[in-house]
Amino acid sequence: MQKNIEKTLLNNSFFRDMADDILQNFLEKAHLKHVSKGHILFQQDDNADLFFLIQKGWVKLFKQTLDGNEAVIDVVNDHYMIGETALFNNSQYTSSAEAAEPCDIISFPTYILNNAIENTPEIAIKMLKIMSSYRKQQDLELENRDIKNAPQRIGCFLLRLCPYPYDRDDITLYLPYDKTLIASRLGMKAETFSRGLNKLKESNNINVSGSTITIPSIHRIKEYTCAFCSAIYPCKDH
Amino acid sequence: MQKNIEKTLLNNSFFRDMADDILQNFLEKAHLKHVSKGHILFQQDDNADLFFLIQKGWVKLFKQTLDGNEAVIDVVNDHYMIGETALFNNSQYTSSAEAAEPCDIISFPTYILNNAIENTPEIAIKMLKIMSSYRKQQDLELENRDIKNAPQRIGCFLLRLCPYPYDRDDITLYLPYDKTLIASRLGMKAETFSRGLNKLKESNNINVSGSTITIPSIHRIKEYTCAFCSAIYPCKDH
Repeated sequence: MQKNIEKTLLNNSFFRDMADDILQNFLEKAHLKHVSKGHILFQQDDNADLFFLIQKGWVKLFKQTLDGNEAVIDVVNDHYMIGETALFNNSQYTSSAEAAEPCDIISFPTYILNNAIENTPEIAIKMLKIMSSYRKQQDLELENRDIKNAPQRIGCFLLRLCPYPYDRDDITLYLPYDKTLIASRLGMKAETFSRGLNKLKESNNINVSGSTITIPSIHRIKEYTCAFCSAIYPCKDH
Repeated sequence: MQKNIEKTLLNNSFFRDMADDILQNFLEKAHLKHVSKGHILFQQDDNADLFFLIQKGWVKLFKQTLDGNEAVIDVVNDHYMIGETALFNNSQYTSSAEAAEPCDIISFPTYILNNAIENTPEIAIKMLKIMSSYRKQQDLELENRDIKNAPQRIGCFLLRLCPYPYDRDDITLYLPYDKTLIASRLGMKAETFSRGLNKLKESNNINVSGSTITIPSIHRIKEYTCAFCSAIYPCKDH
Protein backbone atom coordinates (compact mmCIF):
# COMPACT_ATOMS: atom_id res chain seq x y z
CA MET A 1 0.00 0.00 0.00
CA GLN A 2 2.65 2.58 1.05
CA LYS A 3 4.74 1.67 -2.04
CA ASN A 4 1.76 2.50 -4.22
CA ILE A 5 1.32 5.82 -2.39
CA GLU A 6 5.04 6.60 -2.59
CA LYS A 7 4.97 6.11 -6.36
CA THR A 8 2.12 8.62 -6.66
CA LEU A 9 3.90 11.16 -4.47
CA LEU A 10 7.13 10.89 -6.43
CA ASN A 11 5.15 11.66 -9.59
CA ASN A 12 3.58 14.75 -8.05
CA SER A 13 5.17 18.18 -8.42
CA PHE A 14 4.48 19.14 -4.80
CA PHE A 15 5.99 16.03 -3.18
CA ARG A 16 8.71 15.34 -5.72
CA ASP A 17 12.13 16.77 -4.70
CA MET A 18 10.99 17.04 -1.10
CA ALA A 19 13.70 16.28 1.50
CA ASP A 20 13.55 12.57 2.39
CA ASP A 21 12.68 13.05 6.06
CA ILE A 22 9.76 15.36 5.26
CA LEU A 23 8.46 13.05 2.54
CA GLN A 24 8.64 10.19 5.08
CA ASN A 25 6.49 12.20 7.51
CA PHE A 26 3.80 12.48 4.85
CA LEU A 27 4.16 8.85 3.77
CA GLU A 28 3.88 7.41 7.27
CA LYS A 29 0.51 9.01 7.87
CA ALA A 30 -0.88 8.64 4.34
CA HIS A 31 -3.94 6.50 3.68
CA LEU A 32 -5.14 5.33 0.30
CA LYS A 33 -8.87 4.80 0.00
CA HIS A 34 -11.07 3.69 -2.87
CA VAL A 35 -14.35 5.62 -2.81
CA SER A 36 -17.43 5.15 -4.94
CA LYS A 37 -19.21 7.77 -7.05
CA GLY A 38 -21.14 10.19 -4.84
CA HIS A 39 -18.87 9.73 -1.80
CA ILE A 40 -18.50 13.03 0.07
CA LEU A 41 -14.84 13.62 0.94
CA PHE A 42 -15.50 16.75 2.97
CA GLN A 43 -18.06 19.46 3.46
CA GLN A 44 -17.68 23.20 3.32
CA ASP A 45 -17.12 24.84 6.73
CA ASP A 46 -16.38 21.48 8.42
CA ASN A 47 -13.26 21.31 10.54
CA ALA A 48 -10.38 20.08 8.41
CA ASP A 49 -8.21 17.39 9.99
CA LEU A 50 -7.29 15.91 6.62
CA PHE A 51 -6.28 17.08 3.19
CA PHE A 52 -6.25 14.89 0.09
CA LEU A 53 -4.38 14.03 -3.06
CA ILE A 54 -6.36 12.48 -5.92
CA GLN A 55 -4.53 9.39 -7.13
CA LYS A 56 -7.12 8.53 -9.76
CA GLY A 57 -10.54 9.84 -10.69
CA TRP A 58 -12.59 13.01 -10.95
CA VAL A 59 -13.73 14.94 -7.89
CA LYS A 60 -16.35 17.70 -7.88
CA LEU A 61 -15.64 20.77 -5.74
CA PHE A 62 -18.84 22.63 -4.95
CA LYS A 63 -20.61 25.06 -2.67
CA GLN A 64 -24.13 24.96 -1.36
CA THR A 65 -26.18 28.09 -0.92
CA LEU A 66 -28.44 28.76 2.07
CA ASP A 67 -31.52 27.93 -0.02
CA GLY A 68 -30.08 24.55 -1.09
CA ASN A 69 -28.74 25.37 -4.54
CA GLU A 70 -25.39 23.97 -5.63
CA ALA A 71 -22.59 25.74 -7.53
CA VAL A 72 -19.80 23.64 -9.03
CA ILE A 73 -16.51 25.50 -8.51
CA ASP A 74 -14.31 22.99 -10.29
CA VAL A 75 -13.98 19.32 -11.24
CA VAL A 76 -10.43 18.09 -10.71
CA ASN A 77 -8.55 14.84 -11.21
CA ASP A 78 -5.29 12.90 -10.83
CA HIS A 79 -2.49 14.66 -8.91
CA TYR A 80 -4.75 17.44 -7.70
CA MET A 81 -4.48 18.42 -4.02
CA ILE A 82 -7.78 19.23 -2.34
CA GLY A 83 -8.84 20.48 1.08
CA GLU A 84 -5.45 22.06 1.74
CA THR A 85 -6.76 25.65 1.63
CA ALA A 86 -8.50 24.97 4.97
CA LEU A 87 -5.07 25.46 6.51
CA PHE A 88 -5.31 29.17 5.71
CA ASN A 89 -9.03 29.45 6.49
CA ASN A 90 -9.27 28.81 10.23
CA SER A 91 -8.97 25.06 9.58
CA GLN A 92 -12.32 24.94 7.82
CA TYR A 93 -12.87 23.54 4.34
CA THR A 94 -13.63 26.31 1.84
CA SER A 95 -15.85 24.09 -0.34
CA SER A 96 -17.35 20.60 -0.39
CA ALA A 97 -15.85 17.71 -2.37
CA GLU A 98 -17.65 14.70 -3.86
CA ALA A 99 -16.32 11.82 -5.98
CA ALA A 100 -17.78 12.29 -9.49
CA GLU A 101 -16.87 8.66 -10.32
CA PRO A 102 -15.11 5.82 -8.43
CA CYS A 103 -11.85 7.38 -7.19
CA ASP A 104 -8.61 6.47 -5.44
CA ILE A 105 -7.82 9.14 -2.89
CA ILE A 106 -4.83 9.58 -0.59
CA SER A 107 -5.49 11.39 2.69
CA PHE A 108 -2.97 13.03 5.03
CA PRO A 109 -3.38 14.73 8.41
CA THR A 110 -3.40 18.50 7.88
CA TYR A 111 -0.95 19.10 10.76
CA ILE A 112 1.86 17.44 8.78
CA LEU A 113 1.38 19.91 5.94
CA ASN A 114 1.16 22.75 8.45
CA ASN A 115 4.45 21.71 10.11
CA ALA A 116 6.19 21.29 6.78
CA ILE A 117 5.10 24.76 5.62
CA GLU A 118 6.02 26.42 8.91
CA ASN A 119 9.47 24.87 9.07
CA THR A 120 10.58 24.64 5.46
CA PRO A 121 10.51 27.76 3.28
CA GLU A 122 10.88 25.69 0.08
CA ILE A 123 7.66 23.88 0.89
CA ALA A 124 5.86 27.14 1.63
CA ILE A 125 7.07 28.40 -1.74
CA LYS A 126 5.90 25.24 -3.52
CA MET A 127 2.51 25.75 -1.94
CA LEU A 128 2.49 29.39 -3.05
CA LYS A 129 3.18 28.25 -6.61
CA ILE A 130 0.29 25.81 -6.49
CA MET A 131 -2.06 28.46 -5.09
CA SER A 132 -0.90 30.97 -7.66
CA SER A 133 -1.43 28.59 -10.54
CA TYR A 134 -4.93 27.84 -9.27
CA ARG A 135 -5.64 31.55 -9.00
CA LYS A 136 -4.54 31.96 -12.59
CA GLN A 137 -6.87 29.17 -13.70
CA GLN A 138 -9.75 30.84 -11.88
CA ASP A 139 -8.95 34.19 -13.49
CA LEU A 140 -9.11 32.41 -16.84
CA GLU A 141 -12.40 30.79 -15.91
CA LEU A 142 -13.89 34.20 -15.02
CA GLU A 143 -12.53 35.61 -18.27
CA ASN A 144 -14.01 32.72 -20.28
CA ARG A 145 -17.42 33.25 -18.71
CA ASP A 146 -17.21 36.96 -19.57
CA ILE A 147 -16.08 36.69 -23.13
CA LYS A 148 -16.60 33.26 -24.71
CA ASN A 149 -19.98 31.99 -25.80
CA ALA A 150 -21.21 28.51 -24.84
CA PRO A 151 -19.88 26.61 -27.92
CA GLN A 152 -16.47 28.25 -27.47
CA ARG A 153 -16.35 27.32 -23.79
CA ILE A 154 -17.26 23.72 -24.62
CA GLY A 155 -14.57 23.77 -27.35
CA CYS A 156 -12.05 24.98 -24.75
CA PHE A 157 -13.13 22.16 -22.41
CA LEU A 158 -12.58 19.56 -25.17
CA LEU A 159 -9.20 21.03 -26.17
CA ARG A 160 -8.01 20.65 -22.59
CA LEU A 161 -8.82 16.94 -22.81
CA CYS A 162 -6.58 16.54 -25.90
CA PRO A 163 -3.07 15.26 -25.22
CA TYR A 164 -0.28 17.71 -26.08
CA PRO A 165 1.98 17.43 -28.01
CA TYR A 166 -0.01 15.17 -30.31
CA ASP A 167 1.12 14.04 -33.76
CA ARG A 168 -2.24 13.94 -35.54
CA ASP A 169 -4.89 16.59 -36.18
CA ASP A 170 -7.89 14.27 -35.67
CA ILE A 171 -8.68 12.69 -32.32
CA THR A 172 -11.28 10.60 -30.49
CA LEU A 173 -11.98 11.67 -26.92
CA TYR A 174 -14.17 10.35 -24.13
CA LEU A 175 -16.05 12.78 -21.93
CA PRO A 176 -14.57 12.25 -18.46
CA TYR A 177 -17.85 12.63 -16.52
CA ASP A 178 -21.51 13.06 -17.27
CA LYS A 179 -22.82 15.92 -19.38
CA THR A 180 -24.91 17.44 -16.57
CA LEU A 181 -21.77 17.86 -14.48
CA ILE A 182 -19.78 19.23 -17.46
CA ALA A 183 -22.55 21.83 -17.92
CA SER A 184 -22.35 22.79 -14.21
CA ARG A 185 -18.56 22.89 -14.35
CA LEU A 186 -18.82 25.33 -17.26
CA GLY A 187 -21.44 27.40 -15.42
CA MET A 188 -24.19 26.57 -17.94
CA LYS A 189 -27.70 25.23 -17.67
CA ALA A 190 -28.12 21.75 -19.21
CA GLU A 191 -30.12 23.22 -22.16
CA THR A 192 -27.43 25.81 -22.87
CA PHE A 193 -24.80 23.07 -22.85
CA SER A 194 -26.85 20.92 -25.18
CA ARG A 195 -27.47 23.78 -27.64
CA GLY A 196 -23.83 24.86 -27.39
CA LEU A 197 -22.56 21.35 -28.12
CA ASN A 198 -24.82 21.16 -31.19
CA LYS A 199 -23.51 24.49 -32.45
CA LEU A 200 -19.92 23.34 -31.85
CA LYS A 201 -20.61 20.05 -33.70
CA GLU A 202 -22.01 21.89 -36.73
CA SER A 203 -19.22 24.47 -36.89
CA ASN A 204 -16.40 21.98 -36.45
CA ASN A 205 -17.72 18.72 -37.97
CA ILE A 206 -17.47 17.05 -34.60
CA ASN A 207 -19.23 13.75 -34.02
CA VAL A 208 -20.79 13.00 -30.64
CA SER A 209 -22.00 9.52 -29.78
CA GLY A 210 -22.81 9.08 -26.10
CA SER A 211 -19.64 10.16 -24.34
CA THR A 212 -17.41 9.56 -27.39
CA ILE A 213 -16.34 12.69 -29.23
CA THR A 214 -14.62 12.51 -32.61
CA ILE A 215 -12.84 15.68 -33.61
CA PRO A 216 -11.66 15.78 -37.25
CA SER A 217 -9.35 18.77 -36.71
CA ILE A 218 -7.88 19.99 -33.42
CA HIS A 219 -6.48 22.93 -35.35
CA ARG A 220 -9.96 24.03 -36.45
CA ILE A 221 -11.46 23.84 -32.95
CA LYS A 222 -8.42 25.74 -31.65
CA GLU A 223 -9.05 28.56 -34.14
CA TYR A 224 -12.72 28.50 -33.17
CA THR A 225 -12.09 28.96 -29.46
CA CYS A 226 -8.55 30.17 -28.62
CA ALA A 227 -8.71 33.48 -30.50
CA PHE A 228 -11.21 34.63 -27.85
CA CYS A 229 -8.86 34.04 -24.93
CA SER A 230 -5.93 35.78 -23.25
CA ALA A 231 -4.06 32.47 -22.93
CA ILE A 232 -2.07 30.92 -25.77
CA TYR A 233 -2.64 27.30 -26.81
CA PRO A 234 -1.59 25.02 -25.20
CA CYS A 235 -2.56 26.70 -21.91
CA LYS A 236 0.30 26.55 -19.43
CA ASP A 237 -1.92 24.71 -16.96
CA HIS A 238 -2.57 22.04 -19.64
CA MET B 1 7.11 60.62 2.04
CA GLN B 2 8.51 57.49 3.76
CA LYS B 3 6.54 58.39 6.94
CA ASN B 4 3.36 58.42 4.87
CA ILE B 5 4.27 55.03 3.37
CA GLU B 6 5.18 53.60 6.78
CA LYS B 7 1.78 54.58 8.15
CA THR B 8 0.07 52.71 5.30
CA LEU B 9 2.22 49.61 5.80
CA LEU B 10 1.54 49.53 9.54
CA ASN B 11 -2.18 49.56 8.78
CA ASN B 12 -1.87 46.65 6.36
CA SER B 13 -2.32 43.04 7.51
CA PHE B 14 0.62 41.79 5.44
CA PHE B 15 3.19 44.32 6.64
CA ARG B 16 1.90 44.81 10.19
CA ASP B 17 3.72 42.63 12.78
CA MET B 18 6.60 42.12 10.36
CA ALA B 19 10.06 42.01 12.01
CA ASP B 20 11.53 45.54 12.04
CA ASP B 21 14.53 44.76 9.83
CA ILE B 22 12.37 43.16 7.14
CA LEU B 23 9.86 46.02 7.21
CA GLN B 24 12.80 48.42 6.84
CA ASN B 25 13.94 46.56 3.71
CA PHE B 26 10.54 47.14 2.17
CA LEU B 27 10.33 50.75 3.36
CA GLU B 28 13.76 51.75 2.03
CA LYS B 29 12.85 50.75 -1.50
CA ALA B 30 9.19 51.83 -1.45
CA HIS B 31 7.97 54.59 -3.77
CA LEU B 32 4.67 56.38 -3.50
CA LYS B 33 3.23 57.64 -6.76
CA HIS B 34 0.05 59.49 -7.62
CA VAL B 35 -1.36 58.22 -10.89
CA SER B 36 -4.27 59.54 -12.91
CA LYS B 37 -7.31 57.61 -14.13
CA GLY B 38 -6.38 55.31 -16.99
CA HIS B 39 -2.73 54.94 -15.97
CA ILE B 40 -1.49 51.42 -16.74
CA LEU B 41 0.42 50.04 -13.76
CA PHE B 42 1.48 46.86 -15.52
CA GLN B 43 0.56 44.63 -18.42
CA GLN B 44 -0.14 40.94 -18.51
CA ASP B 45 2.90 38.79 -19.43
CA ASP B 46 5.33 41.70 -18.94
CA ASN B 47 8.38 41.03 -16.81
CA ALA B 48 7.60 41.95 -13.22
CA ASP B 49 10.29 43.95 -11.44
CA LEU B 50 7.79 45.67 -9.17
CA PHE B 51 4.74 44.78 -7.12
CA PHE B 52 2.29 47.31 -5.70
CA LEU B 53 0.18 48.19 -2.71
CA ILE B 54 -2.83 50.43 -3.30
CA GLN B 55 -2.74 53.26 -0.77
CA LYS B 56 -5.87 54.93 -2.09
CA GLY B 57 -8.14 54.41 -5.08
CA TRP B 58 -9.67 51.74 -7.28
CA VAL B 59 -7.60 49.68 -9.71
CA LYS B 60 -8.98 47.51 -12.48
CA LEU B 61 -7.34 44.09 -13.02
CA PHE B 62 -8.06 42.79 -16.49
CA LYS B 63 -7.01 40.47 -19.27
CA GLN B 64 -6.97 41.04 -22.98
CA THR B 65 -7.82 38.32 -25.44
CA LEU B 66 -5.96 37.71 -28.68
CA ASP B 67 -8.79 39.33 -30.67
CA GLY B 68 -8.64 42.50 -28.53
CA ASN B 69 -11.52 41.91 -26.13
CA GLU B 70 -11.13 42.79 -22.45
CA ALA B 71 -12.27 40.79 -19.41
CA VAL B 72 -12.32 42.51 -16.02
CA ILE B 73 -11.07 40.02 -13.43
CA ASP B 74 -11.50 42.28 -10.41
CA VAL B 75 -11.58 45.90 -9.29
CA VAL B 76 -9.65 46.35 -6.05
CA ASN B 77 -8.88 49.23 -3.71
CA ASP B 78 -7.07 50.46 -0.59
CA HIS B 79 -4.69 47.97 1.06
CA TYR B 80 -4.85 45.54 -1.83
CA MET B 81 -1.55 44.09 -3.04
CA ILE B 82 -1.27 43.69 -6.80
CA GLY B 83 1.30 42.22 -9.18
CA GLU B 84 2.74 39.97 -6.48
CA THR B 85 1.53 36.73 -8.12
CA ALA B 86 4.15 37.28 -10.85
CA LEU B 87 6.63 35.97 -8.30
CA PHE B 88 5.13 32.50 -8.73
CA ASN B 89 4.52 32.83 -12.47
CA ASN B 90 8.02 33.00 -13.98
CA SER B 91 8.23 36.69 -12.98
CA GLN B 92 5.50 37.66 -15.42
CA TYR B 93 2.37 39.57 -14.48
CA THR B 94 -0.72 37.36 -14.61
CA SER B 95 -3.07 40.22 -15.60
CA SER B 96 -2.96 43.90 -16.52
CA ALA B 97 -3.73 46.69 -14.04
CA GLU B 98 -5.14 50.15 -14.75
CA ALA B 99 -6.13 52.97 -12.38
CA ALA B 100 -9.94 53.25 -12.49
CA GLU B 101 -9.71 56.70 -10.88
CA PRO B 102 -6.85 58.90 -9.59
CA CYS B 103 -4.89 56.60 -7.23
CA ASP B 104 -2.01 56.66 -4.76
CA ILE B 105 0.11 53.57 -5.31
CA ILE B 106 3.15 52.29 -3.44
CA SER B 107 5.61 50.23 -5.48
CA PHE B 108 8.31 47.85 -4.21
CA PRO B 109 10.96 45.83 -6.05
CA THR B 110 9.77 42.24 -6.36
CA TYR B 111 13.14 40.82 -5.21
CA ILE B 112 12.58 42.17 -1.69
CA LEU B 113 9.33 40.22 -1.42
CA ASN B 114 11.04 37.19 -2.91
CA ASN B 115 13.86 37.35 -0.35
CA ALA B 116 11.45 37.87 2.53
CA ILE B 117 9.37 34.85 1.49
CA GLU B 118 12.41 32.63 0.93
CA ASN B 119 14.01 33.46 4.25
CA THR B 120 11.10 33.95 6.61
CA PRO B 121 8.48 31.21 6.94
CA GLU B 122 6.03 33.57 8.71
CA ILE B 123 6.04 35.84 5.68
CA ALA B 124 5.50 32.92 3.33
CA ILE B 125 2.56 31.89 5.51
CA LYS B 126 1.11 35.41 5.48
CA MET B 127 1.35 35.35 1.72
CA LEU B 128 -0.38 31.95 1.62
CA LYS B 129 -3.22 33.39 3.71
CA ILE B 130 -3.62 36.31 1.31
CA MET B 131 -3.61 33.98 -1.71
CA SER B 132 -6.06 31.63 -0.03
CA SER B 133 -8.45 34.43 0.84
CA TYR B 134 -8.31 35.66 -2.76
CA ARG B 135 -8.99 32.14 -4.01
CA LYS B 136 -12.02 32.00 -1.73
CA GLN B 137 -13.31 35.30 -3.12
CA GLN B 138 -12.90 33.99 -6.65
CA ASP B 139 -14.76 30.78 -5.76
CA LEU B 140 -17.57 32.97 -4.46
CA GLU B 141 -17.51 35.05 -7.63
CA LEU B 142 -17.84 31.91 -9.78
CA GLU B 143 -20.64 30.69 -7.51
CA ASN B 144 -22.45 34.04 -7.78
CA ARG B 145 -22.25 33.97 -11.56
CA ASP B 146 -23.66 30.42 -11.54
CA ILE B 147 -26.52 30.94 -9.16
CA LYS B 148 -27.51 34.57 -8.62
CA ASN B 149 -29.42 36.59 -11.17
CA ALA B 150 -28.28 40.08 -12.20
CA PRO B 151 -30.32 42.08 -9.60
CA GLN B 152 -29.07 39.78 -6.82
CA ARG B 153 -25.46 40.18 -7.95
CA ILE B 154 -25.86 43.97 -8.01
CA GLY B 155 -27.46 43.76 -4.54
CA CYS B 156 -24.44 41.77 -3.33
CA PHE B 157 -22.12 44.42 -4.82
CA LEU B 158 -23.99 47.20 -2.96
CA LEU B 159 -24.05 45.25 0.33
CA ARG B 160 -20.28 44.93 0.18
CA LEU B 161 -20.05 48.73 -0.02
CA CYS B 162 -22.05 49.09 3.22
CA PRO B 163 -20.00 49.58 6.39
CA TYR B 164 -20.29 46.79 8.95
CA PRO B 165 -21.24 46.89 11.77
CA TYR B 166 -23.62 49.76 11.09
CA ASP B 167 -26.21 51.08 13.53
CA ARG B 168 -28.97 52.04 11.09
CA ASP B 169 -30.96 50.06 8.56
CA ASP B 170 -31.05 52.81 5.91
CA ILE B 171 -27.95 54.07 4.15
CA THR B 172 -26.76 56.35 1.38
CA LEU B 173 -23.90 54.99 -0.73
CA TYR B 174 -21.83 56.32 -3.58
CA LEU B 175 -20.88 54.02 -6.44
CA PRO B 176 -17.08 53.79 -6.28
CA TYR B 177 -16.49 53.80 -10.05
CA ASP B 178 -18.52 54.19 -13.21
CA LYS B 179 -21.44 51.92 -14.03
CA THR B 180 -19.84 50.48 -17.18
CA LEU B 181 -16.92 49.22 -15.10
CA ILE B 182 -19.26 47.89 -12.37
CA ALA B 183 -21.10 45.94 -15.08
CA SER B 184 -17.80 44.49 -16.39
CA ARG B 185 -16.67 43.69 -12.84
CA LEU B 186 -19.90 41.74 -12.34
CA GLY B 187 -19.48 39.98 -15.70
CA MET B 188 -22.57 41.65 -17.20
CA LYS B 189 -23.25 43.56 -20.38
CA ALA B 190 -24.16 47.24 -19.75
CA GLU B 191 -27.83 46.57 -20.70
CA THR B 192 -28.07 43.62 -18.31
CA PHE B 193 -26.64 45.79 -15.54
CA SER B 194 -29.09 48.57 -16.29
CA ARG B 195 -32.12 46.23 -16.33
CA GLY B 196 -30.84 44.45 -13.20
CA LEU B 197 -30.41 47.72 -11.32
CA ASN B 198 -33.97 48.74 -12.25
CA LYS B 199 -35.33 45.42 -11.00
CA LEU B 200 -33.35 45.78 -7.77
CA LYS B 201 -34.67 49.34 -7.31
CA GLU B 202 -38.28 48.21 -7.72
CA SER B 203 -37.95 45.19 -5.43
CA ASN B 204 -36.12 47.03 -2.66
CA ASN B 205 -37.36 50.63 -2.92
CA ILE B 206 -33.84 51.77 -3.69
CA ASN B 207 -33.30 55.24 -5.08
CA VAL B 208 -30.56 55.83 -7.65
CA SER B 209 -29.53 59.32 -8.64
CA GLY B 210 -26.32 59.44 -10.67
CA SER B 211 -23.84 57.57 -8.52
CA THR B 212 -25.77 58.13 -5.28
CA ILE B 213 -27.69 55.12 -4.03
CA THR B 214 -30.20 55.41 -1.19
CA ILE B 215 -31.12 52.11 0.40
CA PRO B 216 -34.10 52.26 2.81
CA SER B 217 -33.38 48.84 4.36
CA ILE B 218 -30.07 46.97 4.35
CA HIS B 219 -31.92 44.06 5.97
CA ARG B 220 -34.32 43.79 3.03
CA ILE B 221 -31.59 43.82 0.38
CA LYS B 222 -29.71 41.23 2.46
CA GLU B 223 -32.75 38.92 2.41
CA TYR B 224 -33.09 39.56 -1.31
CA THR B 225 -29.54 38.52 -2.16
CA CYS B 226 -27.80 36.56 0.64
CA ALA B 227 -30.24 33.62 0.74
CA PHE B 228 -28.84 32.64 -2.66
CA CYS B 229 -25.26 32.39 -1.49
CA SER B 230 -23.03 29.91 0.36
CA ALA B 231 -21.48 32.74 2.41
CA ILE B 232 -23.14 34.24 5.46
CA TYR B 233 -23.59 38.01 5.79
CA PRO B 234 -21.34 39.81 6.48
CA CYS B 235 -18.95 37.94 4.16
CA LYS B 236 -15.69 37.19 5.92
CA ASP B 237 -13.81 39.12 3.25
CA HIS B 238 -16.03 42.16 3.97
